[in-house]
Amino acid sequence: MSSQPPKEAVGITAKKSDDFSEWYTQVVMKAGLADYAPVKGFIVLRPYGYAVWESIRDILDRRFKETGHQNGFLPVLIPEGLLSKEEDHFAGFTPEVFWVTQAGNNDLGERLALRPTSETLAYSIFAKWITSYRDLPLKINFWNTALRAEIKATKPFIRTSEFLWQEGHTVHATEDDAEQEVMSILSIYRELIEDHLAVPAVRGFKSDKEKFVGAKYTTTLEGMMADGKALQMGTSHHLAQNFSKPFEIKYLGKDTKEHLAWQTSWGVSWRLIGAIIMVHGDDKGLILPPKIAPIQVVIVPIHKDKDAQAVKEKANEIAQELKNAGIRVHVDDRDEYTSGWKFNEWELKGVPLRINIGARDIEKGQVEFARRDIRDNKIQSPRTSLVDKTNELLEEVQKSLFSKAKALLDGYISSPASYPEFRSIIEGKGGFARAGWCGDQKCELAVKEETGADIRVIPFDQDGMPEKCIYCGQAAKKVAMFGRAY
Amino acid sequence: MSSQPPKEAVGITAKKSDDFSEWYTQVVMKAGLADYAPVKGFIVLRPYGYAVWESIRDILDRRFKETGHQNGFLPVLIPEGLLSKEEDHFAGFTPEVFWVTQAGNNDLGERLALRPTSETLAYSIFAKWITSYRDLPLKINFWNTALRAEIKATKPFIRTSEFLWQEGHTVHATEDDAEQEVMSILSIYRELIEDHLAVPAVRGFKSDKEKFVGAKYTTTLEGMMADGKALQMGTSHHLAQNFSKPFEIKYLGKDTKEHLAWQTSWGVSWRLIGAIIMVHGDDKGLILPPKIAPIQVVIVPIHKDKDAQAVKEKANEIAQELKNAGIRVHVDDRDEYTSGWKFNEWELKGVPLRINIGARDIEKGQVEFARRDIRDNKIQSPRTSLVDKTNELLEEVQKSLFSKAKALLDGYISSPASYPEFRSIIEGKGGFARAGWCGDQKCELAVKEETGADIRVIPFDQDGMPEKCIYCGQAAKKVAMFGRAY
Repeated sequence: MSSQPPKEAVGITAKKSDDFSEWYTQVVMKAGLADYAPVKGFIVLRPYGYAVWESIRDILDRRFKETGHQNGFLPVLIPEGLLSKEEDHFAGFTPEVFWVTQAGNNDLGERLALRPTSETLAYSIFAKWITSYRDLPLKINFWNTALRAEIKATKPFIRTSEFLWQEGHTVHATEDDAEQEVMSILSIYRELIEDHLAVPAVRGFKSDKEKFVGAKYTTTLEGMMADGKALQMGTSHHLAQNFSKPFEIKYLGKDTKEHLAWQTSWGVSWRLIGAIIMVHGDDKGLILPPKIAPIQVVIVPIHKDKDAQAVKEKANEIAQELKNAGIRVHVDDRDEYTSGWKFNEWELKGVPLRINIGARDIEKGQVEFARRDIRDNKIQSPRTSLVDKTNELLEEVQKSLFSKAKALLDGYISSPASYPEFRSIIEGKGGFARAGWCGDQKCELAVKEETGADIRVIPFDQDGMPEKCIYCGQAAKKVAMFGRAY
Repeated sequence: MSSQPPKEAVGITAKKSDDFSEWYTQVVMKAGLADYAPVKGFIVLRPYGYAVWESIRDILDRRFKETGHQNGFLPVLIPEGLLSKEEDHFAGFTPEVFWVTQAGNNDLGERLALRPTSETLAYSIFAKWITSYRDLPLKINFWNTALRAEIKATKPFIRTSEFLWQEGHTVHATEDDAEQEVMSILSIYRELIEDHLAVPAVRGFKSDKEKFVGAKYTTTLEGMMADGKALQMGTSHHLAQNFSKPFEIKYLGKDTKEHLAWQTSWGVSWRLIGAIIMVHGDDKGLILPPKIAPIQVVIVPIHKDKDAQAVKEKANEIAQELKNAGIRVHVDDRDEYTSGWKFNEWELKGVPLRINIGARDIEKGQVEFARRDIRDNKIQSPRTSLVDKTNELLEEVQKSLFSKAKALLDGYISSPASYPEFRSIIEGKGGFARAGWCGDQKCELAVKEETGADIRVIPFDQDGMPEKCIYCGQAAKKVAMFGRAY
């Protein structure tokens, strides 16, 4: 027996409200989600972090398949000549591309890019697969990683040079079909982000400056973190014929004529894990929404030596009953740690619900629950209603996390009446400043230059548009949400 | 209505017995499994091919998790300095490493290797995670790709410069624990390969020449393809302390002393898909074992215009019943193709069971089955026993594929009594020559040089060891299976 706890279980020493950035890094590391890799800019996922990603992946993968998408595989290397076929796209990505120039002892004739995204590679191949309207729609998703060299300091899940993501690529016969796909995917993303991750998001368009390079337009789900900075959580792009032209993706229509196809692409990455941490976490560590928690319930048997066996048996019996009901449960029956130490560790790891079980609970025919998201709460419940009560509490935690996050978002949405007020919000508490915009990129750039705030999203909900552009005072054409962002 | 079928559905024009290599490529391409990528040596997986990989992955992933393994994520880039820390390992891999030398417009100070395998990267990090005996065993698996520049012609699934695989890495307190892990993984691989993929395999050790670079020893599952060439299908390595020494993976034991840890690594790749094709396929195309077939049963409604609706409804009703029973089923109700054309396409794609349903079958209250693995067979069965009969036939196909493959393997195992006989077998029909070996690498190298045959496996089953080495005539120490291989 040793009293030395493993490194990652030492509690968080930074406060979320004092030093958000340090707090974030400590949660990532100490909850056992991730670690730094030997190459600057890269991280490693520890099993607990990967399990959270698996939850996210499984939810999306099921929804993609239910809506007629299939998975495929693309190589990680893209020849420079192919990457440069769509000019805007190439210009947008080259500054951050990793280049392979040698294989074994040989210099390569042409540089090969490590996939920053797969549009160009995928579409050069789709062009071969599509000949007739009967081959459409083609809807393929890829679970892989993208590589974009990050110059700024590594921030796990948020700013890394390689990240896990999915990228979907579809080809359609008409512009409308492509538009429907863009919106249908955005709604699958919303479902994932709001209903499963319990993070509310503002839906809308990106400005031309912020849209995906090569897209006609980009739709986005924009979230608000606890420090007042925005996070782009998922994007779905209408590519129109911008790629089908250079890549010659054509099909023979029912009209026996040749047509250029219409396309979409879309993706979410592991930055969603960053959002979960930043939105839900507290000074004790991570708080995971039950729907994606790898462990939904941890059972800690509490006993003296003489009760040990009976209490552990009861703990396992309870675990089995919960497992049978489809609940993800773990019994922490390690002898070398105290109960207090275990409580701290599972709080740090953000397990949404804990069951304490001791001799007294067995006697009384009850179990004791503790919710992770509420401080110092204990809920006793009869043993006989174990499964119902567990499900009820998990649902309450899920709802409560969303409500708190919604209150956070709402509290961060301001509607400044003047540019000075706008600046003081952006430079003060932060969040989204909802303001009129004339639509001119000059104003957008000036605001960015002067305040550091981008147009994060032009919300679908354009209700109550101000009369004037917040910057130039000309007539507003749109209401936009400005903010500083990750 | 058009009579022009999509390109991939045109039948196989090469015969398996005449031009095995051409036949193989046609099956891969025309069954819609894979396609060539724009970079030489790389392939793309089409959705049908990826679905087969998903079947394989799901089976293994479940078994890994049941046996206490967890998944993680490692970056694809490994600094040269780290890759070179274990000398044999580095020397083995460098000739085929892809090197990143630039990021954006900047030259990198140190070259970064694209992961040929992750031992060095993983172990540099494991060293940080492990401090105490309580951190052991550490058993982590990674689903990713490995990159090894191939000079020889691309052969999809078998010889590609990037391949999908899993690599498992474990750390143990004792040599015995590591050995148990090596064998336990080999047995999970055997279960996958023989019980699910229906491909029989010879289990045993690799010779020192053929073992994994850096391992103490390598265990393997060696299969036999229909052309008499062997295929290594899965390997599990005992690394002893060969990596824990340079990477300083140490733990504090219960004895309060510091110990070097013991390690294993193991992997299977998408070459298993190549094995399925080469072992089970026939002149009509692919034949998929039911346990891993993405579509186990295809239903083809056969009708004239007046019956169309009734027959399609019945087809969907049958499909729903099979789905409810957990069977993977697809209804091919496309109007623009004839039934004959559909039969050919699904045969090409290797769907193990087809149900034809027409007006006459509805009248008679029956369904008609056709097994993919038997020519010109039709099985009528009462509609009422649909699910039972389907399950029975799927099981029969699964067993029958394994029996045929076992007969193939057995027919390819020879026991030559002399070296001239050995040569004539290797240079003639091929397969495994089971022969005595003195244990000297000189003989192994000479045989390779003269006949092209390696020691594929030193089988665990050493029964009936010949007295003499097949090459030098000295006393045999082991019986080895020699053969030419992919």
